[in-house]
Amino acid sequence: MSTIAGQVIRCKAAVAWEAGKPLVIEEVEVAPPQKMEVRLKILYTSLCHTDVYFWEAKAQNSVFPRILGHEAAGIVESVGEGVTELAPGDHVLPVFTGECKNCAHCKSEESNMCSLLRINTDRGVMIHDDQSRFSINGQPIYHFVGTSTFSEYTVVHVGCVAKINPLAPLDKVCVLSCGISTGLGATLNVAKPTKGSSVAVFGLGAVGLAAAEGARIAGASRIIGVDLNASRFELAKKFGVTEFVNPKDYNKPVQEVIAEMTDGGVDRSVECTGHIDAMISAFECVHDGWGVAVLVGVPHKEAVFKTHPMNLLNERTLKGTFFGNYKPRSDLPSVVEKYMNKELELEKFITHQLPFSEINKAFDLMLKGEGLRCIIYMDH
Amino acid sequence: MSTIAGQVIRCKAAVAWEAGKPLVIEEVEVAPPQKMEVRLKILYTSLCHTDVYFWEAKAQNSVFPRILGHEAAGIVESVGEGVTELAPGDHVLPVFTGECKNCAHCKSEESNMCSLLRINTDRGVMIHDDQSRFSINGQPIYHFVGTSTFSEYTVVHVGCVAKINPLAPLDKVCVLSCGISTGLGATLNVAKPTKGSSVAVFGLGAVGLAAAEGARIAGASRIIGVDLNASRFELAKKFGVTEFVNPKDYNKPVQEVIAEMTDGGVDRSVECTGHIDAMISAFECVHDGWGVAVLVGVPHKEAVFKTHPMNLLNERTLKGTFFGNYKPRSDLPSVVEKYMNKELELEKFITHQLPFSEINKAFDLMLKGEGLRCIIYMDH
Repeated sequence: MSTIAGQVIRCKAAVAWEAGKPLVIEEVEVAPPQKMEVRLKILYTSLCHTDVYFWEAKAQNSVFPRILGHEAAGIVESVGEGVTELAPGDHVLPVFTGECKNCAHCKSEESNMCSLLRINTDRGVMIHDDQSRFSINGQPIYHFVGTSTFSEYTVVHVGCVAKINPLAPLDKVCVLSCGISTGLGATLNVAKPTKGSSVAVFGLGAVGLAAAEGARIAGASRIIGVDLNASRFELAKKFGVTEFVNPKDYNKPVQEVIAEMTDGGVDRSVECTGHIDAMISAFECVHDGWGVAVLVGVPHKEAVFKTHPMNLLNERTLKGTFFGNYKPRSDLPSVVEKYMNKELELEKFITHQLPFSEINKAFDLMLKGEGLRCIIYMDH
Repeated sequence: MSTIAGQVIRCKAAVAWEAGKPLVIEEVEVAPPQKMEVRLKILYTSLCHTDVYFWEAKAQNSVFPRILGHEAAGIVESVGEGVTELAPGDHVLPVFTGECKNCAHCKSEESNMCSLLRINTDRGVMIHDDQSRFSINGQPIYHFVGTSTFSEYTVVHVGCVAKINPLAPLDKVCVLSCGISTGLGATLNVAKPTKGSSVAVFGLGAVGLAAAEGARIAGASRIIGVDLNASRFELAKKFGVTEFVNPKDYNKPVQEVIAEMTDGGVDRSVECTGHIDAMISAFECVHDGWGVAVLVGVPHKEAVFKTHPMNLLNERTLKGTFFGNYKPRSDLPSVVEKYMNKELELEKFITHQLPFSEINKAFDLMLKGEGLRCIIYMDH
């Protein structure tokens, strides 16, 4: 049992005081976990586009001051009232969306969009009492998507914590708590390509490459990577991508290019850019009769998906997914096992490492589009 | 063996000489079946909207003179070269689309859109030699979707003929060769509602009621019928429809009405009108997390399906289907068995009967929207 359980912890956290300004490492107070909450010691966190998006706060209102961060791994420090599934010392992944196990979504085999704990980017407080667990000299510092992993300690709802194999290296599996699982699950859980099939992946960032990794694991024989940035093609080969299409190289729609390459269309496609034109292309490039297109990338608020309904009536399927259809608590442990048994390769996603004190450099790397994932070591 | 095999048959057929003009019962010559063809004696045929659509020929070019008709049942009279799966005397359903069993679609478990024999509404001839098998005094009379069942005898490609249980009453199961299977299969094969689930059906004509019948067979507990014509609601109760929504009764989109009725949306929806607004509503009325919408109705050429991509990203699925995803030869016999074992009720679809000599009255009934299916007795 932790000797600090039940007490306020003082520790370092990277605070976003206002939109677009560098984070400041501050000493914060982290209150003990309340009912159905756990307090985690974060060991490793990584940066995801969503952190940058809400830090920039260009397209939406965002809450400040706030502790960002949601892709991470850590150890349970203490648990609040009513928590029976987790105990201090458990190795865990905090997740930006949850699984209450009681709502219609959690009870459905098909959904992972928990009614209680579904991602909420506007909320900066805990659902138990609408309060923040972080403060500096009594001033509340707000939470981000229920995780706030840019802190040595954080408080998370128990439904947003996946208990994983304690042998798993946390500096690697931390990337499974958001982007990599999102892309991987989009392919393995939703697109479900069969062995020998063809898969097109739109967008070769970390999520798209994780979708390609899923296609490689599923045994797809052709994995066609589509990106406007040809510099991504070399790296993508490591993820099983066999062919590349840069839409800029053609003066016809990319769905026509892909249909010509594949005798009528690919068996599956996964869209990871969030651009509406790519979404439409990803749908229209799948083969009639059996093609399935899966949308992953999050679009602009005003975006409209448009297609001729005959594209649907010719027996194409269009689906969207959220967090790769993984239920955080029920399913993430098995994704960690896929890494442990060497089916899933995570090392190739990790292109940079930085100490916590240099977290702003990780933002710079992402803004420049350099690398895939930067692991931030909290104890350095 | 038929004594007329290999010879030209003279028989009665209802010829559409020009668009929108009453059919004329003529004596036609029906040539013997050629390679991979069979000649059928049609015993019962019924009328489907598609016949009327191509007879009116308002929205597209149509071939004339032509023998329409594609929903029917009959007996094999003789077979052409290479036909081994069928023999004279077999009871069969001719189908407007085929199954060659050799193409990528036929080899796929998911598709029924045969590359060789997929519906072709423009073609008026047989694919073997680009000739018609029908003539009057040497003038060719063209085929319609490979079936032309408004004739006492017709010639059909073997891939468009389903051999069925000889005990099945042909005056009932004839309706399975198009519309009823289309709606039934949309629900049973594509939407796949589970026992106790909720299903919305848009359009309560024969196809929509067949979709409702599928939901009833699957054990859906709520079947919500949506139609602009409230006079259809009473009849729809026979098909398991439990609730009715007339979009005209509300001043908000019908998808919102349905979401309020069902705590967030139905589990499944099936769209059978072909109107683009209904297609969009049918998609947006399914529950996030697990809802599946299936499009059946054929839209206008210029129709555009539009939705906000977040409706997809929230884990809704949108699919289209053609002929209920049934492979004509492989799957229709089992649909006939569903009727034989009383799981599927066909009698309630049959609202009228007419002798062949009065076939134009069947067109009048359909144009007036009266009844569901009118069976035409060829021998009267």
